[in-house]
Amino acid sequence: MDSPRRGFPASEFRERVRRLQRLMAESGLAAMLFTTEPEVRYFTGFLTRFWESPTRPWFLVVPSSGDPVAVIPEIGRPLMERTWLRDILTWPSPDPDDDGISLLASALSDAAGQSGAIGIPAGPETHLRLPRNAFEDLARKIAPRRFAHDFHAMRSLRSVKSPMEMEKIAHACEIAGRAFARVHEIAGAGTALSEVFRRFQILCLEEGADWVPYLAGGAGREGYADVISPAGPQTLERGDVLMLDTGLVWDGYFCDFDRNYSVGPAGEKVASAHRSLVLASGEALKAARPGVEVRELHRVMDRAIRGAGQATAPGRLGHEIGMQLTEGLSIMDGGDSTLVSGMALALEPVVEVAEGKIMAHEENVFVTGSGAVMVSPEAPSEIPEI
Amino acid sequence: MDSPRRGFPASEFRERVRRLQRLMAESGLAAMLFTTEPEVRYFTGFLTRFWESPTRPWFLVVPSSGDPVAVIPEIGRPLMERTWLRDILTWPSPDPDDDGISLLASALSDAAGQSGAIGIPAGPETHLRLPRNAFEDLARKIAPRRFAHDFHAMRSLRSVKSPMEMEKIAHACEIAGRAFARVHEIAGAGTALSEVFRRFQILCLEEGADWVPYLAGGAGREGYADVISPAGPQTLERGDVLMLDTGLVWDGYFCDFDRNYSVGPAGEKVASAHRSLVLASGEALKAARPGVEVRELHRVMDRAIRGAGQATAPGRLGHEIGMQLTEGLSIMDGGDSTLVSGMALALEPVVEVAEGKIMAHEENVFVTGSGAVMVSPEAPSEIPEI
Repeated sequence: MDSPRRGFPASEFRERVRRLQRLMAESGLAAMLFTTEPEVRYFTGFLTRFWESPTRPWFLVVPSSGDPVAVIPEIGRPLMERTWLRDILTWPSPDPDDDGISLLASALSDAAGQSGAIGIPAGPETHLRLPRNAFEDLARKIAPRRFAHDFHAMRSLRSVKSPMEMEKIAHACEIAGRAFARVHEIAGAGTALSEVFRRFQILCLEEGADWVPYLAGGAGREGYADVISPAGPQTLERGDVLMLDTGLVWDGYFCDFDRNYSVGPAGEKVASAHRSLVLASGEALKAARPGVEVRELHRVMDRAIRGAGQATAPGRLGHEIGMQLTEGLSIMDGGDSTLVSGMALALEPVVEVAEGKIMAHEENVFVTGSGAVMVSPEAPSEIPEI
Repeated sequence: MDSPRRGFPASEFRERVRRLQRLMAESGLAAMLFTTEPEVRYFTGFLTRFWESPTRPWFLVVPSSGDPVAVIPEIGRPLMERTWLRDILTWPSPDPDDDGISLLASALSDAAGQSGAIGIPAGPETHLRLPRNAFEDLARKIAPRRFAHDFHAMRSLRSVKSPMEMEKIAHACEIAGRAFARVHEIAGAGTALSEVFRRFQILCLEEGADWVPYLAGGAGREGYADVISPAGPQTLERGDVLMLDTGLVWDGYFCDFDRNYSVGPAGEKVASAHRSLVLASGEALKAARPGVEVRELHRVMDRAIRGAGQATAPGRLGHEIGMQLTEGLSIMDGGDSTLVSGMALALEPVVEVAEGKIMAHEENVFVTGSGAVMVSPEAPSEIPEI
């Protein structure tokens, strides 16, 4: 199978830094501090699953001009040296007395000047990945400089995907699409749900996933209770609807879409719920273009579902995707977010099939100047039978 | 294959809460607030891969007496209702105006009384998983109650594994052991490292892993540069040493150990480095028992490596394992941590084979009252050839 090129040229990272620094200048920030995996990776390309270990903090300092400075545990030096970054400061971590905080304070002070404000992510979907007492120690050490909330910098930057980012997301979608097309090989009446989950991850890897950070799903008569559960102990039965929702990763980028299957012939309730879901995501695809308000996408999906005699479930009906399973805006009945060209979206209509039973359907699309294009292989209107 | 029972009885969660509440009483804390996956899961059993989504915050409040209160997004209610918890408060998340903060403030105020101190994790390996501006809003809303640093509560509780936790870790180790025993099926001269990584994850799943959150490794002549890298573009060549290090999960518990392989016959440098590594972990196993200082394990491994004419690499030589890939103490030359019965350890000696080239070896052991037992299938002294 043909794969896009891995990684990004240094020019792409430089452009990301330049866009951030323009936003920083508008907000009067002398430097920014990042502590989480997607933030550090977005500006450096530092890609490792070692973030799974909670032991060591990792830092990236972006000055108001010039290149970022990585302040990281010594164990990460060889890998960080393979990125475009040249300014890499390390310490022997873990150090129970001073786990990089003095080194970071010094780098921040250098970057921010005598009394500058240092931006830290503060809004939705952010957190500071370092111990609270270390952060308080850091705040003391950088005085008279001080921390200031950022302006949702990462959200606005990451919302606009570059062509190379889109290639990676599209490739992840293709891989998942091939895996979903093979579900009949691994699941049917009598298969334990835990086996379905295990074997579906194998399919994703066989089809080219680098790893499979996310798999949820459910099965039951007339739907399932939620969309976030791991495999329960039950066995698939004729008449069940099975849903698998995966976020697999290729070169650090996620797809996030699901598929529904009927174990044996579908009953009319499930069949018509599925038709309304596919109709709804199709209508949202047609409606999505730059300048459209996000709540309009919610309205379009809700109208399609209600028009088909179904009931839309409460909650959001989609989100952005990219370096994380979910990121950015929420497709909800409210807010004033607007689509822009370069967004990657998961359209995720959900219907209430019965009391406590839902069905969810999800497709991934790109918003381009001329409209939206689907990048997940569009699901058929009729629910597939396994 | 025989598997242990999944989950835990409610009595085990009650006992964990009781132990926490005893520590809280000693520290004068009226309640505690937890925000991260292992913290919430430790007291509830709430197990989902949905934490991969950064969108929604999740909270657990533990009062000074009585059961914990989950304050979580509505999307998590069905799954949380399947745990032992009865007090589950939810809100429709994401809510850009108030993402659970008012609800949480009210639950914390109820739990902490009129002016109590509310503990939050603050020490090594912890962070607060909620946006900074939401935390500041919360601190205002709970006044005159205030947040106070905890006393490394989770570290001391989680260091002592229960018999059922040990069963799950041991089962994860068995699964990884079977996968490592099959590496010759998937790797050899001419195999791309990216294919080795992909196929090894398939082996882990085939052998029974629920999922594979962590795989790192490296390959090269006389060792590799680090132990945290994802697959690079290279192809295995005769004379390379290949290392794979996995943290796979069974029922929410990790193993974490690695294995080295020689592509074709091993040169003397690699062969003797491997012998010294296996000797070192074996000596540490013999030395590990309750009451032994952790730095003594470092000393024992370093002495074994030097005695074999090799050089120990800088950095820690192991850590605890359990609900996370790495957790708890660090096996280092310093500190005053002491082994206690019930600890699960990764012993991880590392040698410098050549300039910029290391080899690492890792085994998982339990510390019991009568000494330590190895739970990973002990590696042979002679590096296996593939």
